[in-house]
Formats: sequence, structure tokens, C-alpha cells
Amino acid sequence: MRATLIHGPRDIRVEDCPDPVLLTDTDAIVKVAAACVCGSDLWPYRGINPTPEPRRIGHEFIGTVTALGSKVATLKVGDFVVAPWANSCGTCPPCRNGVQVACEHRAAWGGNDENGLPVDGGQGEAVRVPNADGTLVPVPGVSEPDESLSKSLLALSDVMGTGHHAALGARVAPGRSVVVVGDGAVGLCGVLAAKRLGATRIIAMSRHADRAALAREFGATDVVSERGAEAAVKVRELLGGVLADSVLECVGTAEAMDQALRCTRPGGSLGFVGVPHGQDGLPISVLFSKNISVAGGAASTRAYLPELLEDVLAGLINPGLVFDTVMGLEQAPEAYRAMDERNSIKVMLKLG
Amino acid sequence: MRATLIHGPRDIRVEDCPDPVLLTDTDAIVKVAAACVCGSDLWPYRGINPTPEPRRIGHEFIGTVTALGSKVATLKVGDFVVAPWANSCGTCPPCRNGVQVACEHRAAWGGNDENGLPVDGGQGEAVRVPNADGTLVPVPGVSEPDESLSKSLLALSDVMGTGHHAALGARVAPGRSVVVVGDGAVGLCGVLAAKRLGATRIIAMSRHADRAALAREFGATDVVSERGAEAAVKVRELLGGVLADSVLECVGTAEAMDQALRCTRPGGSLGFVGVPHGQDGLPISVLFSKNISVAGGAASTRAYLPELLEDVLAGLINPGLVFDTVMGLEQAPEAYRAMDERNSIKVMLKLG
Repeated sequence: MRATLIHGPRDIRVEDCPDPVLLTDTDAIVKVAAACVCGSDLWPYRGINPTPEPRRIGHEFIGTVTALGSKVATLKVGDFVVAPWANSCGTCPPCRNGVQVACEHRAAWGGNDENGLPVDGGQGEAVRVPNADGTLVPVPGVSEPDESLSKSLLALSDVMGTGHHAALGARVAPGRSVVVVGDGAVGLCGVLAAKRLGATRIIAMSRHADRAALAREFGATDVVSERGAEAAVKVRELLGGVLADSVLECVGTAEAMDQALRCTRPGGSLGFVGVPHGQDGLPISVLFSKNISVAGGAASTRAYLPELLEDVLAGLINPGLVFDTVMGLEQAPEAYRAMDERNSIKVMLKLG
Repeated sequence: MRATLIHGPRDIRVEDCPDPVLLTDTDAIVKVAAACVCGSDLWPYRGINPTPEPRRIGHEFIGTVTALGSKVATLKVGDFVVAPWANSCGTCPPCRNGVQVACEHRAAWGGNDENGLPVDGGQGEAVRVPNADGTLVPVPGVSEPDESLSKSLLALSDVMGTGHHAALGARVAPGRSVVVVGDGAVGLCGVLAAKRLGATRIIAMSRHADRAALAREFGATDVVSERGAEAAVKVRELLGGVLADSVLECVGTAEAMDQALRCTRPGGSLGFVGVPHGQDGLPISVLFSKNISVAGGAASTRAYLPELLEDVLAGLINPGLVFDTVMGLEQAPEAYRAMDERNSIKVMLKLG
């Protein structure tokens, strides 16, 4: 089969790889219908995270189950499934606590499972999925989703669940004012998640017309282009003299976190999901004196998939709109370039 | 009148000071019945915070209203009141949000009010209280509390509300396992708050028999004497292989915060109320990878006073037990010494 590998900075290649086969009795094989490039894939792409040797890449995909290990109980061959970005067993204490990202038996897409056996990356034609029961979520009544539905299902693999995680971390609720820092796919899904959770005043931070337009379509009531201290001044002005109740930090840089903290009112809540890069640490004196609560981290999208899937299938949310570009698998290098140069919000790689 | 001043490190004196008088129409004058020394008073006492010139000190007191400004609406002369450690107006946006510590018109006990007028410290015979309506809480049906009730009312001024704030920050709830780091009066009140909020498994960290005994009386089911990484191992063992759902950090040092983070399970919550000292910042990568939420800071005890007061008056909680020593005002220097040397958990200064 064909699959994507990263060889080093800005060196993405689609190559021939062995077809995956069942290696344990809790595995599934999934024929990938669509995959995508994550903002976090750009860290090694940009050379910020090292790539000591070529490796398979990608951790967001949807597709059809083609084979199952003998102990898999909740899936059947032919099921159309969403794979969350983090593999999880579903039964260990963290999984039972809804923190699947801390699964004690987690396998790494494009890496290895707990037995040291290789696991495929998501950007390829097929994937061996360890811990199939705890990981994959079947989409009821759907076997061949159209492109629009495919996009939304694929968004549930990571960005929509991650935006939802940020909104929960920021304690978004009806009546609370919301600021979203970051206009990538996660930030935009954060806007949609905030709207879904009942926020009526949502301020998106963006300097890009296309992203700002999608933020508004997702529920943003205001768009702010200022940054840093100026952004906080603008937020205070928009909210009638106070800062925001809930702030979503969806970037991960020190600048974004600083901006998010500046926009949060005393006693407010900050949800953060941007993978921390270049941050020394959260300024505890600021948190203490402003009584700002902080919650977030890597999102257990597996935990949120059932309820978000229900809303997608009911047509209540359409997170797939973040995919403004569709390419084939062989165009993966181009997809990375488009994401890196911010010419695309998010690229769907359509297979088959 | 007589009142306490700090002149410098380990130099506490009780001196003659002018009797307070009403200076604005929103003031009250309170004749102090009891006051106490706060753990945070020990920072300047130990010379860790500078004392450039002698100043009045103390921010926890209870007493009787003896005079009122013309605009005070919720109090009457003769009311027995609890003064929260933080003065607040009760009407600005932070106060309306229940974050009175961020009050935009806050006056500082022993410092100045927003008009630059001097405010008495709490460790003295009487106090001018700016923002009387927003600050003082009358105790219904009580005019001369006995010593036991006085202790519990005085605890509501700061330590009990602060322990409650830590427990809320740590999302304590029925069924959640709790660890409390710190066996000072705040930590002990954190144990009591956790018990009050329904926790059934509460692990207190202490190496002092008297404090451990009080922790058990307040609801601790286990006492751990280990520190740092060893403490986390012990907690995991006590909880059957997992770390704690909720951890209260009630010290403020880097070591205590590190220990608290080590004891928190993935997806767990850390409530922190220890005034940060010597901490560079919260390790955001740990928070991100473990999905630990952090909430706390200076407690708005004014917000919690009504519900906690109700429980004190109903005999449901007895936070006054943290006062293991009672002295007179003239013994304030000795009270500081007893607190500093940890010979006393908390000293009540009884006046009149």
C-alpha cells in the first residue's frame, strides 16, 4: 500500500509500504477513506521537533473496518469508523476516567504499540489499529459518507474534539463571554464548540479574512485583529469594560498564552489545547492574583466522540467546514506545504 | 487604642495608636473581639517580604459594629460581624462575579483605602472598615459569642474560606479522592472543606502528631508523612494504584507544588491557595501531558462566608479547632513567635 513518511524538515514522501495485517487479537485493520494533516505534524515538518530517521506520520483518519482480531467485541467488518487521534484501550483507570490520552496501553500512530509492534500512521491507505474496541467509534447507519459528511467525521478525529476540550477547560456555558486565541482549525472548532455549549458572545482573534469568515459562520459575534496587550484592551472594550469569562488558547506559543491570560477576567477560566512550544511555564503569580483557572492539555477526543458524532449526524454542527482543501494521498507533500504556508486552513487527503 | 505594628523582621510591637473614626459615609467602625496571625503575616515577619517602615498589621478579625457611615445599609450598630481578610465593595464587576479579592475599590487592612485614607490593621482594638456593606458579614442572633464560637467565626475570616477555595479549585465532590498538601491551618481547613463537600477518602500530608490528629478529626482518612516523589508513591499505593482525583496545595512553595502535581492523576484537578513563594512558574508541559487542571489563588472568603457561617451556626463544622492557642493582644509578639516556630497551629488574640 501507499503511505506517507516524514524524512526530515520539509521532506514528506508517499512511498510503498507493507499492507498491514492483524498482529494481536484486539487489532482491527481499517481501510482509510480520508486522512489529514494536523497542526502538530507541522512541528517536525518545520524541524522544530527532530526527525532522527524516516517514519510514518498522521494520526487522524476515517475508514472502513476490513479485518478484526478475535477478541474485538464492539465492531464488525464493514463498519465505517472514526479513529481518534490518540489510541486507547478503554479499560485502564485513565480511560475509565475519560482521560484516554493517558491510556496505560496506548499505541502510537506511526510508532509502536505496547508490545513493540509497529503501528501504521494515519496518512496511508490502511492502518492496523491496536486496542480496536477502546479506540474506534463506528458511525451508525453510514457506510460511504459523502464528501461533506466525511469532512465532519474526520474533524471529530481531532480538531473538533480538541476545540471542545478547550471550551470545557474554559468552562464555557450559557451567558459566559468567550475569547478564542488562534484561528487554525482547532481555534475555529473552539468557536463552534463554544457556540454549541451555549455561549452567545464569542470573540475570535484573527487577521485572515477567510478564517474570520468561517469563525463568524461557526458562531463568533466579533473578530479582533489586535494582538497582546492591545487585544485585551479591545476585548475589554467589546465586553463593556470587563475581560472575558472564558478564554480558549489554541496555539501553544508563549505569545498566545500571554494574550489569553491578558484577556481573562479575574476569576475567569482559560482552556488550553495548543501543544506548548517555547513556553517556560505558566506565571503562577498571575494565576494566583487574578484567580484564573487553567485546564486543558491533549484532548481525549475519544471521550467526546459519541456526543459530537450525534450532533454531526443530526446536522446540528458542521465542523467539516474547516477543510477548505481536498487532495489525494499522493499530494501529501503539497498538503503539508499548504498548511505550513497557511494557504489552507486544513487539508483533507481523500483516498480511494 | 492599642494596635500591633511590624517594624521589621521578627520585630512585632503593640503600641498606642489613634482611635479610628468614620472617614467616609460607607465606613463602619468595628470594636475588635478577636483577631489572629496569618501564615502570610510570617512572610514579612521572617524578612522574606520587606518592611521598609513600621506599619499596622493583621487582616483577620471579628467584633462589634460601634459606628456607621450614613450610607451603610446592611448593618446596624451593635451587630457582631466577621471581617473577611480582603476588603471589598460588593458592587464592582469582580465583586458581582464573586471574586471580591479583585475588587476595584479594595482597601488594604493596615494600608490605605482607594482615597488614600489610612485603614487600621486587624490586630488592634478597633478598625475603620471602608466599604462596610460589601465587606462585613453580620452573625445573626449572636452578640457575644463564647470562645469556641469566636474561634470558628474568626476562622471564617480567612483560613476556612481559603481551605474551601482550595477544595473547590480541586473540584472536590462526593466519590473523588483527595490529597491535601500542607498541615497549617489552611491545609487543615482544606481537609474539613473536602469532608464537607462529600469526599470520603481524604489523605492529609503531615509529620506533626498534633496536626495529623486534627486532620483526622476534620475528616482525613489517611495521613502520609513522606514527601516529594515518595509521597506520590504512597498516595498511589493507598488509592489502589492510581493517583488522586483532587489535590489541594496549601503551602505556596515550589516543593509543595511539585509534590501536589506528582500526586494528581491524569485528568485530575489541583486547587492552590498557598501564596506563591520561590516558584518560577507552573510546568505547562506537565499540565498539558497529564491534563491536570489548576484553579485557585487568593480566596474570596467574602463570597463563601454566608454558606460557611450557616454551617458553623448549625454546628455542622467546627473550623475554630485550628486555634490551639489563645493570647491577649499585648502578647502579639509571642503569638508571631509561636506561629513562626510552628509551636502553635494558629493563635487567637482575644481582646477586651
